[in-house]
Amino acid sequence: MIYLDDLDRAILKVLKEDARVTISEISERLGKPESTIHFRIKKLIERGVIEKYTIVLGEAARPKEVAFIVLGIEKPVIEEFLGRYLEYVSKNLANLPNVLLVAKTEDERIVALVGAETKKELNEFIEENIKSIPSVREIVVYPIEEFKKGEEIKGLLLGI
Amino acid sequence: MIYLDDLDRAILKVLKEDARVTISEISERLGKPESTIHFRIKKLIERGVIEKYTIVLGEAARPKEVAFIVLGIEKPVIEEFLGRYLEYVSKNLANLPNVLLVAKTEDERIVALVGAETKKELNEFIEENIKSIPSVREIVVYPIEEFKKGEEIKGLLLGI
Repeated sequence: MIYLDDLDRAILKVLKEDARVTISEISERLGKPESTIHFRIKKLIERGVIEKYTIVLGEAARPKEVAFIVLGIEKPVIEEFLGRYLEYVSKNLANLPNVLLVAKTEDERIVALVGAETKKELNEFIEENIKSIPSVREIVVYPIEEFKKGEEIKGLLLGI
Repeated sequence: MIYLDDLDRAILKVLKEDARVTISEISERLGKPESTIHFRIKKLIERGVIEKYTIVLGEAARPKEVAFIVLGIEKPVIEEFLGRYLEYVSKNLANLPNVLLVAKTEDERIVALVGAETKKELNEFIEENIKSIPSVREIVVYPIEEFKKGEEIKGLLLGI
């Protein structure tokens, strides 16, 4: 784990909350010289702690319905083929705009987060684009009723 | 779905890539007057399309190991109690710093994303904080080997 001191953390907290604040505002808020804040932010970027300044899209632009999906692929005759096939399927899923997130699991499943405007659209999308994948042995859909933490990922992952 | 025209989309794309760019830079890049860019961004914020300017933390600060977890709760004797119990469990999970994301599903399960520095730490965390929840009937852990899309959520969700 990378070492961050209290000032680093305080700066990161401010920027997480609103990345538009200026160095002089951070300096005032944290009671440290501007030159220190400037230097620390430069270092945080160089050290790879801050990767990106970005925007999170709001409710108005987010998909209304989302579901987590877990996919299992039928083991093909040639075991070696499975890795490449999973790679291929997950790459194709990642290319679909309704698919917000795709990850391969250690036990050779695929976890995805998909989104749409309505439940009907979401189901149709799953039917047409996921259930139709050849060799899908198992598909479990977990429609999300409510996020308790992390809902903002919808506004980060959304394509424009 | 909210209406966004080509200029709105172009502005959002630029800001998603780097939210530090100035209005005059966007104006130059998109070949539109600064006043137009200024007005459009103001509108995008007012309309709830842009919710937040923020930072995404990089590899150096992200948990090395993450897993999706699906939790099922044993139906209690009194059916009415289940909703409140799920609420309680998901709130408690959301309070744990290793828990990056918590969502309740429509079929009364909980989906969570948890992270830690090592596989050992991750397993211990799950053992101590999740498997120990009373009435957990079913817990499936999907350790993630590789993200194909959306890996940046780790850098957004991370607490500081």
